Amino acid sequence: MFKINDNYTKLPGSYLFSTISKKVNTFTTANPGADIIRLGIGDVTLPLAPKVIEALHSAVDEMGTKETFKGYAPDLGYEFLRQAIADNDYKSRGVDIALDEIFISDGAKSDSGNIGDIFSVDNKIAVCDPVYPVYVDTNVMAGRTGVYDSATEKWSNVIYMPCTNDNNFAPELPGETPDIIYLCFPNNPTGSTITKDELQAWVDYALKERAVIIYDAAYEAYISEDNVPHTIYECMGAKECAIEIRSFSKNAGFTGTRLGFTVIPKELKSNDVSLNSLWARRHGTKFNGAPYIIQKAGAAVYTEEGRKQTQEQIDYYMNNAKVIREGLIAAGYSVSGGVNAPYIWLKTPDRMTSWEFFDYLLNEAKVVGTPGSGFGPSGEGYFRLTAFGTYENTLEAIERIKSL
Amino acid sequence: MFKINDNYTKLPGSYLFSTISKKVNTFTTANPGADIIRLGIGDVTLPLAPKVIEALHSAVDEMGTKETFKGYAPDLGYEFLRQAIADNDYKSRGVDIALDEIFISDGAKSDSGNIGDIFSVDNKIAVCDPVYPVYVDTNVMAGRTGVYDSATEKWSNVIYMPCTNDNNFAPELPGETPDIIYLCFPNNPTGSTITKDELQAWVDYALKERAVIIYDAAYEAYISEDNVPHTIYECMGAKECAIEIRSFSKNAGFTGTRLGFTVIPKELKSNDVSLNSLWARRHGTKFNGAPYIIQKAGAAVYTEEGRKQTQEQIDYYMNNAKVIREGLIAAGYSVSGGVNAPYIWLKTPDRMTSWEFFDYLLNEAKVVGTPGSGFGPSGEGYFRLTAFGTYENTLEAIERIKSL
Repeated sequence: MFKINDNYTKLPGSYLFSTISKKVNTFTTANPGADIIRLGIGDVTLPLAPKVIEALHSAVDEMGTKETFKGYAPDLGYEFLRQAIADNDYKSRGVDIALDEIFISDGAKSDSGNIGDIFSVDNKIAVCDPVYPVYVDTNVMAGRTGVYDSATEKWSNVIYMPCTNDNNFAPELPGETPDIIYLCFPNNPTGSTITKDELQAWVDYALKERAVIIYDAAYEAYISEDNVPHTIYECMGAKECAIEIRSFSKNAGFTGTRLGFTVIPKELKSNDVSLNSLWARRHGTKFNGAPYIIQKAGAAVYTEEGRKQTQEQIDYYMNNAKVIREGLIAAGYSVSGGVNAPYIWLKTPDRMTSWEFFDYLLNEAKVVGTPGSGFGPSGEGYFRLTAFGTYENTLEAIERIKSL
Repeated sequence: MFKINDNYTKLPGSYLFSTISKKVNTFTTANPGADIIRLGIGDVTLPLAPKVIEALHSAVDEMGTKETFKGYAPDLGYEFLRQAIADNDYKSRGVDIALDEIFISDGAKSDSGNIGDIFSVDNKIAVCDPVYPVYVDTNVMAGRTGVYDSATEKWSNVIYMPCTNDNNFAPELPGETPDIIYLCFPNNPTGSTITKDELQAWVDYALKERAVIIYDAAYEAYISEDNVPHTIYECMGAKECAIEIRSFSKNAGFTGTRLGFTVIPKELKSNDVSLNSLWARRHGTKFNGAPYIIQKAGAAVYTEEGRKQTQEQIDYYMNNAKVIREGLIAAGYSVSGGVNAPYIWLKTPDRMTSWEFFDYLLNEAKVVGTPGSGFGPSGEGYFRLTAFGTYENTLEAIERIKSL
């Protein structure tokens, strides 16, 4: 008789976005025609850049002709794309990453979810709180997290690193020693970052404790300040302790186009086993590559025109972030993020809970955001707004909030 | 200190295709300019159908315009594609599959590798021998297979079901009871199939033993005979015991375009837990959808023109299969497959091992195939040729083999 993976049944329901959706539906039913502005979702809205579109059309044409048709892709991804990544994302920042240390994938969500496969169930993870839910949920599925306490909303075998106003939303080295540390900078949901020196302290800590850092750099393109590292490999020794996950979703609008990559340096070993070889085996066995035409689209992002065009999109979103950030500050809110990230994280006023503020904003300003408590217990009392809307809507939303 | 998943280190090296590649390289170095014909690989060679190319271009244009741009896809995949699948692959065969029982993915390799996630480590699997290596390897990675014996090339905790000339390459119900049964019909590598009555016996067996069947129907489009089932759900009771995995790779040439789907009926339960809900959770947590433009391409396969054009490709490959099959029979070989599948499975002559025959064919006919022993111990003494080459090359290869 077959048996299911019981760990799945331990997962509490994921009600955040469905609850938001229900509340919005209830509101629109009661207020037909209400002009609701949605600044809640982490999805981009600008179309793909012209250079990317051009590359897609050209690759589609290749797929339609016998001479240029492409079947199965190389296991690690096409070299033209891995070379562009090595040159533009790493060499340009003084970091040498070999082509066979780069694994092209269908996105950072898959990679950050699947990376746990190469680790033993018997590892203790540490996560920031609040946090992108995929890190915790996929470890629950793997049986690594112990027992869930619905009162505290915490798992017994997970080390939570609170990121709040008190520590400027930068996690502190945990008291208990973890085996696997998830870090995401610039951060989703708080929009905060840490400096290169601060990240170096994490690398030093991981090396000392023989922990591995899973570094999610999906929002790297939004960094505007000089002392913020663009890759963890800018830190000394990081190649011996860190895996880096990158995405094309937010820098080039690929949320529905699907492309990402993971870097595992060959120096990263457990005893004498290279994690690079383990991931290569997983990649070759449980995945068959990102589509050729999508990999060509990814390479177009790194061309001169592609870089210029995608930078304009990032500038557009970051101008929205500025509008939100400055508008909220002018309205008296305590605000972080929005400088090196497309997320603005605000403290709810008047001791409102995250959900109370959600209702208040929906009812009084017809603006939809995301309750911070949905990202973890330390997110309670905070609220996330995103910069991915249109400029006009963003401006209007902030005017409404200011006039409350 | 972090610990790796030790199961990965138990995997024996995957040397099949690299050994083939080395042998071919050695031969071409010794025989420069030799006109080698490759009938070894399972990759398609015809370009994507015009209707698919048209759909891709159109979807790319949508992605380049703000009004029609698509971000994150729905968790299960776009409804237009799931509806086309439900109508064309199931309803047309008298099978009702609901839209939320269909999960769009990036391909059958990912799905057949990842499906193990929703099952407990404590399940015993049964596989055909020879077999597509992904089923076994991914179970090794999950820790389900016990100890490897390099002498027998078998895992201690896997039930092997030999498929040889003696049983017409159709597996028999195993003596020992499995929990999870992997079946692939039409079969890779043997090219064989079983009848609807024979498959019904497997469904009855699974229901009786409370086992689950993972049914890989990636080669369904190649079925030419009437009494061969196109989906396992043609069998009574299959919705209570079977998961079906499908691919666009071989029916529409999507090997480098990446699209597939998995069907999990809601009736398939363990105690009261629906496997559909477990897979939905995995799909939503560790995957972010196939690209919109690829899903549009998939939908184009189901249009009237798309069906006609992809059928022409299948006919082209199956004509190659006929050339190979009939040519080998004329040359005195014992041959199976090639009638409902693009694979021809031949018994090596003169008691040659699979690798001896590989060397013989390479040296004497300059034809490259795949040694049957690479797919499992019961593949020893067999050899696989594929129908995915050009007609001209296929014809020439068979002429050479006939003249040996």
